[in-house]
Amino acid sequence: MTERTLIAIEDPADPRIVEFSQIRERDLTGRAGQFIAEGTVVLRMLAAANRAGRGIRAEKLLLLRNRVDGVADLLAAFPGDVPVYVAEAPVLDAIAGFHLHRGVLALGRRDVGDSTDTLIAALPQESLVLVGCGISNHDNVGALFRNAAAFGADAVLLDETCCDPLYRKALRVSVGSVLTTPYARSGSSQALLGGLSEKGFAIWALSPAGEVEIGEIVPQARMALVMGTEGEGLPKAILDRFHTARIAQSPGLDSLNVGTASGIALYSMAKAMGRLQG
Amino acid sequence: MTERTLIAIEDPADPRIVEFSQIRERDLTGRAGQFIAEGTVVLRMLAAANRAGRGIRAEKLLLLRNRVDGVADLLAAFPGDVPVYVAEAPVLDAIAGFHLHRGVLALGRRDVGDSTDTLIAALPQESLVLVGCGISNHDNVGALFRNAAAFGADAVLLDETCCDPLYRKALRVSVGSVLTTPYARSGSSQALLGGLSEKGFAIWALSPAGEVEIGEIVPQARMALVMGTEGEGLPKAILDRFHTARIAQSPGLDSLNVGTASGIALYSMAKAMGRLQG
Repeated sequence: MTERTLIAIEDPADPRIVEFSQIRERDLTGRAGQFIAEGTVVLRMLAAANRAGRGIRAEKLLLLRNRVDGVADLLAAFPGDVPVYVAEAPVLDAIAGFHLHRGVLALGRRDVGDSTDTLIAALPQESLVLVGCGISNHDNVGALFRNAAAFGADAVLLDETCCDPLYRKALRVSVGSVLTTPYARSGSSQALLGGLSEKGFAIWALSPAGEVEIGEIVPQARMALVMGTEGEGLPKAILDRFHTARIAQSPGLDSLNVGTASGIALYSMAKAMGRLQG
Repeated sequence: MTERTLIAIEDPADPRIVEFSQIRERDLTGRAGQFIAEGTVVLRMLAAANRAGRGIRAEKLLLLRNRVDGVADLLAAFPGDVPVYVAEAPVLDAIAGFHLHRGVLALGRRDVGDSTDTLIAALPQESLVLVGCGISNHDNVGALFRNAAAFGADAVLLDETCCDPLYRKALRVSVGSVLTTPYARSGSSQALLGGLSEKGFAIWALSPAGEVEIGEIVPQARMALVMGTEGEGLPKAILDRFHTARIAQSPGLDSLNVGTASGIALYSMAKAMGRLQG
Protein backbone atom coordinates (compact mmCIF):
# COMPACT_ATOMS: atom_id res chain seq x y z
CA MET A 1 0.00 0.00 0.00
CA THR A 2 1.39 3.38 -0.94
CA GLU A 3 1.59 6.00 1.72
CA ARG A 4 -1.30 8.41 1.38
CA THR A 5 -0.67 12.15 1.36
CA LEU A 6 -2.55 13.79 4.20
CA ILE A 7 -3.46 17.46 4.05
CA ALA A 8 -3.51 19.08 7.48
CA ILE A 9 -6.36 21.49 8.22
CA GLU A 10 -5.66 23.92 11.04
CA ASP A 11 -8.27 26.59 10.41
CA PRO A 12 -11.94 25.51 10.73
CA ALA A 13 -12.75 28.12 8.08
CA ASP A 14 -10.33 26.61 5.54
CA PRO A 15 -12.18 26.78 2.20
CA ARG A 16 -10.97 23.32 1.18
CA ILE A 17 -13.26 21.67 3.72
CA VAL A 18 -16.13 24.17 3.66
CA GLU A 19 -18.62 21.46 2.66
CA PHE A 20 -18.18 19.84 6.10
CA SER A 21 -18.91 23.06 7.94
CA GLN A 22 -21.80 22.99 10.46
CA ILE A 23 -23.13 19.77 8.98
CA ARG A 24 -25.93 19.40 11.48
CA GLU A 25 -27.58 22.67 10.55
CA ARG A 26 -27.38 22.51 6.83
CA ASP A 27 -27.69 19.76 4.38
CA LEU A 28 -25.83 19.60 1.13
CA THR A 29 -28.50 17.63 -0.60
CA GLY A 30 -29.99 19.47 -3.51
CA ARG A 31 -26.67 21.10 -4.27
CA ALA A 32 -25.75 19.06 -7.31
CA GLY A 33 -26.24 15.76 -5.48
CA GLN A 34 -23.50 16.28 -2.91
CA PHE A 35 -23.85 14.41 0.35
CA ILE A 36 -21.98 13.80 3.59
CA ALA A 37 -21.12 10.25 4.60
CA GLU A 38 -19.95 9.50 8.13
CA GLY A 39 -18.49 6.53 9.93
CA THR A 40 -16.30 3.72 8.64
CA VAL A 41 -19.15 1.44 7.58
CA VAL A 42 -20.81 4.05 5.37
CA LEU A 43 -17.44 5.16 3.99
CA ARG A 44 -16.66 1.59 3.03
CA MET A 45 -19.94 1.49 1.10
CA LEU A 46 -19.04 4.80 -0.53
CA ALA A 47 -15.64 3.46 -1.58
CA ALA A 48 -17.32 0.39 -3.08
CA ALA A 49 -19.94 2.49 -4.88
CA ASN A 50 -17.17 4.74 -6.17
CA ARG A 51 -15.30 1.73 -7.58
CA ALA A 52 -18.47 0.33 -9.13
CA GLY A 53 -18.67 3.51 -11.18
CA ARG A 54 -22.43 3.76 -11.35
CA GLY A 55 -22.82 7.45 -10.74
CA ILE A 56 -21.54 7.79 -7.19
CA ARG A 57 -18.18 9.40 -6.49
CA ALA A 58 -16.15 10.27 -3.42
CA GLU A 59 -14.87 13.85 -3.64
CA LYS A 60 -12.88 14.31 -0.44
CA LEU A 61 -12.34 12.82 3.01
CA LEU A 62 -11.96 14.56 6.35
CA LEU A 63 -10.56 12.59 9.28
CA LEU A 64 -9.64 13.07 12.87
CA ARG A 65 -5.84 12.79 12.87
CA ASN A 66 -5.76 10.06 15.49
CA ARG A 67 -8.12 7.88 13.42
CA VAL A 68 -5.81 7.81 10.39
CA ASP A 69 -3.73 4.79 11.39
CA GLY A 70 -6.78 2.75 12.30
CA VAL A 71 -8.47 3.28 8.93
CA ALA A 72 -5.49 2.76 6.60
CA ASP A 73 -7.26 -0.02 4.70
CA LEU A 74 -10.34 2.14 4.29
CA LEU A 75 -8.26 4.99 2.85
CA ALA A 76 -6.64 2.54 0.47
CA ALA A 77 -10.11 1.69 -0.88
CA PHE A 78 -10.47 5.20 -2.31
CA PRO A 79 -8.68 6.30 -5.52
CA GLY A 80 -5.40 8.12 -4.97
CA ASP A 81 -6.75 11.40 -6.33
CA VAL A 82 -9.40 11.75 -3.61
CA PRO A 83 -7.87 14.27 -1.20
CA VAL A 84 -7.63 13.27 2.45
CA TYR A 85 -7.82 16.13 4.93
CA VAL A 86 -6.95 15.59 8.57
CA ALA A 87 -7.60 17.74 11.63
CA GLU A 88 -7.10 17.55 15.36
CA ALA A 89 -10.24 17.07 17.46
CA PRO A 90 -10.84 20.75 18.41
CA VAL A 91 -10.53 21.84 14.77
CA LEU A 92 -12.75 19.01 13.52
CA ASP A 93 -15.41 19.77 16.13
CA ALA A 94 -15.27 23.46 15.20
CA ILE A 95 -15.74 22.58 11.53
CA ALA A 96 -18.63 20.18 12.09
CA GLY A 97 -20.27 22.30 14.78
CA PHE A 98 -20.55 19.48 17.32
CA HIS A 99 -18.41 16.75 18.82
CA LEU A 100 -17.72 14.15 16.18
CA HIS A 101 -16.72 11.04 18.09
CA ARG A 102 -16.61 8.98 14.89
CA GLY A 103 -14.13 11.35 13.29
CA VAL A 104 -14.46 9.93 9.78
CA LEU A 105 -16.30 11.96 7.13
CA ALA A 106 -16.51 12.02 3.36
CA LEU A 107 -18.06 14.29 0.79
CA GLY A 108 -19.72 12.30 -1.97
CA ARG A 109 -21.64 13.14 -5.10
CA ARG A 110 -24.42 11.25 -6.81
CA ASP A 111 -25.15 11.98 -10.46
CA VAL A 112 -28.73 12.70 -11.39
CA GLY A 113 -29.99 9.14 -11.31
CA ASP A 114 -32.42 7.34 -13.56
CA SER A 115 -35.95 8.69 -13.66
CA THR A 116 -38.63 6.64 -11.94
CA ASP A 117 -39.91 5.44 -15.33
CA THR A 118 -36.46 4.41 -16.55
CA LEU A 119 -35.79 2.56 -13.32
CA ILE A 120 -39.13 0.73 -13.53
CA ALA A 121 -38.49 -0.15 -17.17
CA ALA A 122 -35.13 -1.68 -16.26
CA LEU A 123 -36.44 -3.94 -13.46
CA PRO A 124 -35.93 -7.66 -13.95
CA GLN A 125 -38.86 -9.93 -14.79
CA GLU A 126 -38.85 -11.22 -11.21
CA SER A 127 -38.81 -8.15 -9.00
CA LEU A 128 -39.54 -6.97 -5.52
CA VAL A 129 -39.82 -3.21 -5.12
CA LEU A 130 -40.26 -1.09 -2.00
CA VAL A 131 -42.30 2.09 -2.41
CA GLY A 132 -42.37 4.96 0.09
CA CYS A 133 -45.20 7.52 0.14
CA GLY A 134 -44.76 10.70 2.13
CA ILE A 135 -41.97 9.34 4.34
CA SER A 136 -40.35 12.58 5.47
CA ASN A 137 -38.62 11.24 8.57
CA HIS A 138 -34.91 10.71 7.88
CA ASP A 139 -34.61 7.67 10.16
CA ASN A 140 -37.54 5.98 8.51
CA VAL A 141 -36.23 6.56 4.98
CA GLY A 142 -32.85 5.20 6.09
CA ALA A 143 -34.55 2.15 7.62
CA LEU A 144 -36.45 1.47 4.37
CA PHE A 145 -33.15 1.27 2.48
CA ARG A 146 -31.48 -0.90 5.10
CA ASN A 147 -34.36 -3.37 4.94
CA ALA A 148 -34.55 -3.23 1.15
CA ALA A 149 -30.88 -4.24 1.05
CA ALA A 150 -31.26 -6.93 3.72
CA PHE A 151 -34.12 -8.61 1.85
CA GLY A 152 -32.82 -8.04 -1.65
CA ALA A 153 -35.38 -5.59 -3.03
CA ASP A 154 -34.49 -4.62 -6.60
CA ALA A 155 -35.26 -0.94 -6.13
CA VAL A 156 -36.67 1.65 -3.75
CA LEU A 157 -39.12 4.10 -5.31
CA LEU A 158 -40.01 7.22 -3.35
CA ASP A 159 -42.66 9.77 -4.20
CA GLU A 160 -41.68 13.44 -4.32
CA THR A 161 -42.94 14.05 -0.76
CA CYS A 162 -40.41 11.65 0.78
CA CYS A 163 -37.21 13.19 2.09
CA ASP A 164 -33.99 12.82 0.14
CA PRO A 165 -32.29 9.56 1.18
CA LEU A 166 -28.91 11.26 0.79
CA TYR A 167 -29.55 13.35 3.90
CA ARG A 168 -26.72 12.62 6.30
CA LYS A 169 -28.92 10.92 8.88
CA ALA A 170 -30.91 8.84 6.40
CA LEU A 171 -27.67 7.67 4.82
CA ARG A 172 -26.24 6.77 8.23
CA VAL A 173 -29.36 4.86 9.34
CA SER A 174 -29.35 2.99 6.03
CA VAL A 175 -25.80 1.85 6.89
CA GLY A 176 -24.85 3.08 3.43
CA SER A 177 -27.47 1.03 1.57
CA VAL A 178 -28.68 4.23 -0.11
CA LEU A 179 -25.40 4.14 -2.06
CA THR A 180 -25.86 0.61 -3.34
CA THR A 181 -29.62 0.24 -3.86
CA PRO A 182 -31.13 1.53 -7.13
CA TYR A 183 -33.66 4.24 -6.32
CA ALA A 184 -35.58 7.18 -7.69
CA ARG A 185 -37.53 9.95 -5.96
CA SER A 186 -40.02 11.89 -8.05
CA GLY A 187 -43.65 12.43 -8.91
CA SER A 188 -46.82 11.55 -7.07
CA SER A 189 -47.38 8.20 -5.43
CA GLN A 190 -50.40 7.64 -7.68
CA ALA A 191 -48.31 8.14 -10.83
CA LEU A 192 -45.56 5.94 -9.45
CA LEU A 193 -47.90 3.10 -8.51
CA GLY A 194 -49.76 3.45 -11.80
CA GLY A 195 -46.43 3.00 -13.59
CA LEU A 196 -45.67 -0.17 -11.62
CA SER A 197 -49.18 -1.51 -12.17
CA GLU A 198 -48.84 -1.08 -15.95
CA LYS A 199 -45.69 -3.18 -15.83
CA GLY A 200 -47.49 -6.06 -14.18
CA PHE A 201 -46.58 -5.44 -10.55
CA ALA A 202 -48.93 -6.74 -7.88
CA ILE A 203 -49.16 -3.74 -5.58
CA TRP A 204 -49.63 -4.29 -1.85
CA ALA A 205 -50.25 -1.27 0.34
CA LEU A 206 -49.46 -1.93 4.01
CA SER A 207 -52.05 -0.66 6.47
CA PRO A 208 -53.23 -1.68 9.96
CA ALA A 209 -56.67 -2.18 8.35
CA GLY A 210 -55.31 -4.15 5.38
CA GLU A 211 -57.50 -6.93 3.95
CA VAL A 212 -54.94 -9.72 3.76
CA GLU A 213 -52.53 -10.76 6.50
CA ILE A 214 -49.01 -10.27 5.16
CA GLY A 215 -48.18 -13.97 5.48
CA GLU A 216 -51.16 -14.91 3.30
CA ILE A 217 -50.19 -12.90 0.24
CA VAL A 218 -49.95 -15.13 -2.82
CA PRO A 219 -46.56 -14.45 -4.41
CA GLN A 220 -46.24 -13.25 -7.99
CA ALA A 221 -43.22 -12.62 -10.19
CA ARG A 222 -43.36 -8.86 -9.73
CA MET A 223 -44.41 -7.40 -6.41
CA ALA A 224 -44.37 -3.98 -4.81
CA LEU A 225 -44.76 -3.18 -1.12
CA VAL A 226 -46.08 0.32 -0.39
CA MET A 227 -45.33 2.05 2.93
CA GLY A 228 -46.95 5.23 4.23
CA THR A 229 -46.15 7.41 7.21
CA GLU A 230 -46.46 6.28 10.81
CA GLY A 231 -49.14 8.75 11.83
CA GLU A 232 -51.48 9.21 8.90
CA GLY A 233 -50.75 6.02 7.01
CA LEU A 234 -51.41 5.75 3.29
CA PRO A 235 -54.03 7.95 1.60
CA LYS A 236 -57.45 6.42 1.06
CA ALA A 237 -57.13 6.76 -2.71
CA ILE A 238 -54.20 4.31 -2.63
CA LEU A 239 -55.86 1.90 -0.22
CA ASP A 240 -58.98 1.89 -2.40
CA ARG A 241 -57.14 1.32 -5.66
CA PHE A 242 -54.65 -1.41 -4.75
CA HIS A 243 -54.39 -4.58 -2.66
CA THR A 244 -54.00 -3.95 1.06
CA ALA A 245 -52.11 -6.06 3.59
CA ARG A 246 -51.80 -5.93 7.37
CA ILE A 247 -49.35 -7.33 9.90
CA ALA A 248 -51.11 -9.44 12.54
CA GLN A 249 -50.66 -7.86 15.98
CA SER A 250 -51.97 -7.93 19.49
CA PRO A 251 -55.40 -6.36 19.67
CA GLY A 252 -55.78 -2.68 20.45
CA LEU A 253 -52.21 -1.62 19.94
CA ASP A 254 -50.70 1.29 18.11
CA SER A 255 -49.13 0.57 14.76
CA LEU A 256 -45.52 -0.50 14.38
CA ASN A 257 -42.63 1.75 13.51
CA VAL A 258 -42.22 2.21 9.72
CA GLY A 259 -38.80 0.57 9.74
CA THR A 260 -39.97 -2.52 11.62
CA ALA A 261 -43.20 -2.84 9.65
CA SER A 262 -41.36 -2.61 6.33
CA GLY A 263 -38.85 -5.20 7.59
CA ILE A 264 -41.56 -7.68 8.55
CA ALA A 265 -43.46 -7.19 5.31
CA LEU A 266 -40.40 -7.36 3.03
CA TYR A 267 -39.11 -10.44 4.83
CA SER A 268 -42.49 -12.12 4.43
CA MET A 269 -42.88 -11.21 0.75
CA ALA A 270 -39.29 -11.99 -0.24
CA LYS A 271 -39.58 -15.34 1.52
CA ALA A 272 -42.87 -16.17 -0.20
CA MET A 273 -41.22 -15.29 -3.53
CA GLY A 274 -38.38 -17.73 -2.73
CA ARG A 275 -35.75 -15.01 -2.86
CA LEU A 276 -34.06 -15.47 0.52
CA GLN A 277 -31.32 -17.80 1.62
CA GLY A 278 -32.98 -20.30 3.96
CA MET B 1 -64.87 18.23 33.07
CA THR B 2 -63.74 20.57 35.81
CA GLU B 3 -61.44 23.41 34.94
CA ARG B 4 -57.86 22.54 35.78
CA THR B 5 -55.74 24.93 37.83
CA LEU B 6 -52.65 25.92 35.86
CA ILE B 7 -49.53 27.14 37.63
CA ALA B 8 -47.60 29.68 35.58
CA ILE B 9 -43.81 29.35 35.50
CA GLU B 10 -42.00 32.53 34.54
CA ASP B 11 -38.50 31.81 35.80
CA PRO B 12 -36.64 28.89 34.17
CA ALA B 13 -34.87 28.36 37.51
CA ASP B 14 -38.16 27.95 39.42
CA PRO B 15 -37.52 25.10 41.89
CA ARG B 16 -40.97 23.62 41.27
CA ILE B 17 -39.95 22.44 37.81
CA VAL B 18 -36.26 21.75 38.48
CA GLU B 19 -36.62 18.11 37.36
CA PHE B 20 -37.26 19.31 33.79
CA SER B 21 -34.11 21.40 33.70
CA GLN B 22 -31.60 20.64 30.90
CA ILE B 23 -33.24 17.29 30.21
CA ARG B 24 -30.98 16.43 27.32
CA GLU B 25 -27.82 16.53 29.37
CA ARG B 26 -28.92 14.76 32.45
CA ASP B 27 -31.15 11.87 33.02
CA LEU B 28 -33.27 11.39 36.07
CA THR B 29 -33.19 7.66 35.90
CA GLY B 30 -31.59 6.15 38.93
CA ARG B 31 -32.92 8.89 41.14
CA ALA B 32 -35.59 6.90 42.87
CA GLY B 33 -37.13 5.77 39.58
CA GLN B 34 -38.09 9.23 38.34
CA PHE B 35 -38.40 9.67 34.61
CA ILE B 36 -39.36 12.26 32.00
CA ALA B 37 -42.17 11.50 29.57
CA GLU B 38 -42.68 13.69 26.52
CA GLY B 39 -45.34 14.04 23.86
CA THR B 40 -49.07 13.43 24.01
CA VAL B 41 -48.90 9.74 23.10
CA VAL B 42 -46.48 8.85 25.90
CA LEU B 43 -48.37 11.07 28.36
CA ARG B 44 -51.57 9.24 27.52
CA MET B 45 -49.81 5.97 28.37
CA LEU B 46 -48.53 7.52 31.59
CA ALA B 47 -52.04 8.61 32.56
CA ALA B 48 -53.33 5.10 31.87
CA ALA B 49 -50.49 3.49 33.84
CA ASN B 50 -51.15 5.93 36.68
CA ARG B 51 -54.83 4.94 36.76
CA ALA B 52 -53.96 1.25 36.63
CA GLY B 53 -52.10 1.70 39.91
CA ARG B 54 -49.37 -0.85 39.31
CA GLY B 55 -46.42 1.14 40.57
CA ILE B 56 -46.28 3.99 38.08
CA ARG B 57 -47.30 7.50 39.07
CA ALA B 58 -47.42 10.88 37.41
CA GLU B 59 -45.87 13.55 39.66
CA LYS B 60 -46.20 16.76 37.67
CA LEU B 61 -46.82 18.08 34.18
CA LEU B 62 -45.14 20.93 32.33
CA LEU B 63 -46.78 22.32 29.22
CA LEU B 64 -46.29 25.01 26.66
CA ARG B 65 -49.09 27.48 27.37
CA ASN B 66 -50.44 27.42 23.84
CA ARG B 67 -50.77 23.61 23.95
CA VAL B 68 -53.10 23.65 26.96
CA ASP B 69 -56.38 24.00 25.08
CA GLY B 70 -55.46 21.28 22.60
CA VAL B 71 -54.72 18.71 25.32
CA ALA B 72 -57.65 19.32 27.66
CA ASP B 73 -58.79 15.70 27.45
CA LEU B 74 -55.27 14.50 28.18
CA LEU B 75 -55.07 16.71 31.29
CA ALA B 76 -58.40 15.33 32.42
CA ALA B 77 -56.91 11.83 32.32
CA PHE B 78 -54.57 12.71 35.21
CA PRO B 79 -55.78 12.91 38.83
CA GLY B 80 -56.66 16.40 40.04
CA ASP B 81 -53.78 16.52 42.52
CA VAL B 82 -51.10 16.23 39.82
CA PRO B 83 -49.87 19.81 39.42
CA VAL B 84 -49.90 21.27 35.92
CA TYR B 85 -47.23 23.90 35.25
CA VAL B 86 -47.38 26.04 32.14
CA ALA B 87 -44.76 28.24 30.51
CA GLU B 88 -44.39 30.38 27.41
CA ALA B 89 -42.07 29.00 24.71
CA PRO B 90 -38.92 31.00 25.63
CA VAL B 91 -39.20 29.96 29.28
CA LEU B 92 -39.90 26.31 28.41
CA ASP B 93 -36.96 26.18 26.01
CA ALA B 94 -34.72 27.75 28.66
CA ILE B 95 -35.83 25.12 31.16
CA ALA B 96 -35.35 22.16 28.85
CA GLY B 97 -32.16 23.49 27.29
CA PHE B 98 -33.33 23.08 23.71
CA HIS B 99 -36.35 23.90 21.56
CA LEU B 100 -39.22 21.67 22.60
CA HIS B 101 -41.62 21.66 19.69
CA ARG B 102 -43.81 19.08 21.36
CA GLY B 103 -44.27 21.21 24.44
CA VAL B 104 -45.80 18.50 26.59
CA LEU B 105 -43.75 16.97 29.40
CA ALA B 106 -44.42 14.96 32.54
CA LEU B 107 -42.37 13.81 35.47
CA GLY B 108 -43.21 10.24 36.40
CA ARG B 109 -42.04 7.77 38.99
CA ARG B 110 -41.81 3.99 38.85
CA ASP B 111 -41.66 2.04 42.08
CA VAL B 112 -38.90 -0.52 42.41
CA GLY B 113 -40.47 -3.22 40.29
CA ASP B 114 -40.54 -6.96 40.70
CA SER B 115 -37.20 -8.73 40.64
CA THR B 116 -36.38 -10.78 37.57
CA ASP B 117 -37.10 -13.99 39.49
CA THR B 118 -40.45 -12.76 40.79
CA LEU B 119 -41.45 -11.64 37.32
CA ILE B 120 -40.48 -15.00 35.81
CA ALA B 121 -42.35 -16.86 38.54
CA ALA B 122 -45.50 -14.88 37.78
CA LEU B 123 -45.53 -15.54 34.04
CA PRO B 124 -48.57 -17.39 32.68
CA GLN B 125 -48.30 -20.99 31.56
CA GLU B 126 -48.37 -19.86 27.93
CA SER B 127 -45.78 -17.14 27.66
CA LEU B 128 -43.68 -15.27 25.17
CA VAL B 129 -40.80 -13.31 26.68
CA LEU B 130 -38.33 -10.93 25.05
CA VAL B 131 -34.82 -10.88 26.52
CA GLY B 132 -32.22 -8.17 25.87
CA CYS B 133 -28.49 -8.77 26.47
CA GLY B 134 -26.15 -5.80 26.50
CA ILE B 135 -28.50 -3.47 24.62
CA SER B 136 -27.13 -0.10 25.67
CA ASN B 137 -28.52 1.95 22.80
CA HIS B 138 -31.61 3.89 23.95
CA ASP B 139 -33.38 3.67 20.60
CA ASN B 140 -32.91 -0.08 20.45
CA VAL B 141 -34.22 -0.64 23.98
CA GLY B 142 -37.22 1.53 23.15
CA ALA B 143 -37.81 -0.46 19.96
CA LEU B 144 -37.72 -3.76 21.89
CA PHE B 145 -40.55 -2.55 24.12
CA ARG B 146 -42.60 -1.19 21.23
CA ASN B 147 -42.36 -4.55 19.46
CA ALA B 148 -42.99 -6.52 22.65
CA ALA B 149 -46.24 -4.58 23.05
CA ALA B 150 -47.23 -4.90 19.38
CA PHE B 151 -46.85 -8.67 19.45
CA GLY B 152 -48.16 -9.25 22.95
CA ALA B 153 -45.01 -10.41 24.75
CA ASP B 154 -45.77 -11.11 28.43
CA ALA B 155 -42.59 -9.49 29.70
CA VAL B 156 -39.30 -7.91 28.71
CA LEU B 157 -36.28 -9.10 30.68
CA LEU B 158 -33.06 -7.10 30.42
CA ASP B 159 -29.68 -8.01 31.80
CA GLU B 160 -27.85 -5.50 33.96
CA THR B 161 -25.75 -4.25 31.02
CA CYS B 162 -28.79 -2.99 29.11
CA CYS B 163 -29.63 0.67 29.51
CA ASP B 164 -32.54 1.73 31.68
CA PRO B 165 -35.72 1.72 29.56
CA LEU B 166 -36.96 4.74 31.51
CA TYR B 167 -34.39 6.96 29.82
CA ARG B 168 -36.30 9.73 28.09
CA LYS B 169 -35.37 8.63 24.59
CA ALA B 170 -35.99 4.92 25.17
CA LEU B 171 -39.38 5.76 26.63
CA ARG B 172 -40.22 7.98 23.66
CA VAL B 173 -39.13 5.41 21.06
CA SER B 174 -41.19 2.76 22.89
CA VAL B 175 -44.22 5.05 22.41
CA GLY B 176 -44.82 4.59 26.12
CA SER B 177 -44.83 0.78 26.05
CA VAL B 178 -42.18 0.77 28.78
CA LEU B 179 -44.96 2.01 31.11
CA THR B 180 -47.37 -0.81 30.28
CA THR B 181 -45.15 -3.86 29.68
CA PRO B 182 -43.96 -5.85 32.71
CA TYR B 183 -40.18 -5.77 32.84
CA ALA B 184 -37.13 -6.25 35.02
CA ARG B 185 -33.49 -5.28 34.53
CA SER B 186 -30.90 -7.04 36.66
CA GLY B 187 -28.24 -9.69 36.81
CA SER B 188 -26.24 -11.40 34.13
CA SER B 189 -27.80 -12.72 30.94
CA GLN B 190 -26.63 -16.24 31.86
CA ALA B 191 -28.44 -16.11 35.20
CA LEU B 192 -31.53 -14.66 33.58
CA LEU B 193 -31.66 -17.28 30.83
CA GLY B 194 -30.88 -20.03 33.32
CA GLY B 195 -33.89 -18.89 35.35
CA LEU B 196 -36.15 -19.02 32.30
CA SER B 197 -34.80 -22.40 31.29
CA GLU B 198 -35.60 -23.85 34.72
CA LYS B 199 -39.18 -22.72 34.28
CA GLY B 200 -39.55 -24.63 31.04
CA PHE B 201 -38.92 -21.87 28.54
CA ALA B 202 -37.58 -22.81 25.12
CA ILE B 203 -34.84 -20.24 24.66
CA TRP B 204 -34.05 -18.98 21.17
CA ALA B 205 -31.04 -16.74 20.72
CA LEU B 206 -31.20 -14.68 17.52
CA SER B 207 -27.98 -14.57 15.52
CA PRO B 208 -27.07 -14.17 11.81
CA ALA B 209 -25.42 -17.61 12.13
CA GLY B 210 -28.38 -19.19 13.93
CA GLU B 211 -29.14 -22.85 13.20
CA VAL B 212 -32.86 -22.64 12.54
CA GLU B 213 -34.61 -20.14 10.28
CA ILE B 214 -36.99 -18.14 12.45
CA GLY B 215 -40.05 -19.33 10.52
CA GLU B 216 -39.16 -22.99 11.17
CA ILE B 217 -39.14 -22.80 14.96
CA VAL B 218 -41.53 -25.33 16.44
CA PRO B 219 -43.74 -23.42 18.87
CA GLN B 220 -43.95 -24.40 22.53
CA ALA B 221 -46.10 -23.12 25.38
CA ARG B 222 -43.28 -21.02 26.87
CA MET B 223 -40.82 -19.30 24.59
CA ALA B 224 -38.13 -16.68 25.00
CA LEU B 225 -36.48 -14.68 22.23
CA VAL B 226 -32.98 -13.39 23.08
CA MET B 227 -31.55 -10.31 21.36
CA GLY B 228 -27.93 -9.10 21.51
CA THR B 229 -26.29 -5.91 20.29
CA GLU B 230 -26.05 -4.92 16.64
CA GLY B 231 -22.28 -4.97 16.42
CA GLU B 232 -21.03 -7.81 18.59
CA GLY B 233 -24.13 -9.93 18.71
CA LEU B 234 -24.72 -12.40 21.53
CA PRO B 235 -21.79 -13.90 23.44
CA LYS B 236 -20.62 -17.33 22.34
CA ALA B 237 -21.48 -18.83 25.74
CA ILE B 238 -25.15 -18.03 25.11
CA LEU B 239 -25.12 -19.22 21.50
CA ASP B 240 -23.49 -22.49 22.60
CA ARG B 241 -25.90 -23.14 25.45
CA PHE B 242 -29.29 -22.39 23.89
CA HIS B 243 -31.16 -22.81 20.60
CA THR B 244 -30.14 -20.34 17.92
CA ALA B 245 -32.30 -18.88 15.17
CA ARG B 246 -31.58 -16.68 12.16
CA ILE B 247 -33.65 -14.46 9.91
CA ALA B 248 -33.30 -15.43 6.25
CA GLN B 249 -31.75 -12.57 4.29
CA SER B 250 -30.07 -11.73 1.03
CA PRO B 251 -26.59 -13.20 0.87
CA GLY B 252 -23.62 -11.16 2.00
CA LEU B 253 -25.47 -8.40 3.76
CA ASP B 254 -24.92 -6.75 7.08
CA SER B 255 -27.26 -7.73 9.88
CA LEU B 256 -30.57 -6.01 10.48
CA ASN B 257 -31.19 -3.27 13.00
CA VAL B 258 -32.03 -4.66 16.48
CA GLY B 259 -35.51 -3.15 16.41
CA THR B 260 -36.40 -4.62 13.03
CA ALA B 261 -34.84 -8.01 13.79
CA SER B 262 -36.72 -8.28 17.08
CA GLY B 263 -39.93 -7.27 15.31
CA ILE B 264 -39.56 -9.94 12.64
CA ALA B 265 -38.65 -12.63 15.16
CA LEU B 266 -41.39 -11.75 17.66
CA TYR B 267 -43.99 -11.57 14.89
CA SER B 268 -42.92 -14.96 13.63
CA MET B 269 -42.86 -16.61 17.06
CA ALA B 270 -46.11 -15.05 18.30
CA LYS B 271 -47.80 -16.10 15.09
CA ALA B 272 -46.51 -19.67 15.36
CA MET B 273 -47.81 -19.74 18.95
CA GLY B 274 -51.25 -18.66 17.70
CA ARG B 275 -51.21 -15.48 19.78
CA LEU B 276 -51.92 -12.85 17.11
CA GLN B 277 -55.16 -11.63 15.66
CA GLY B 278 -55.21 -12.93 12.09
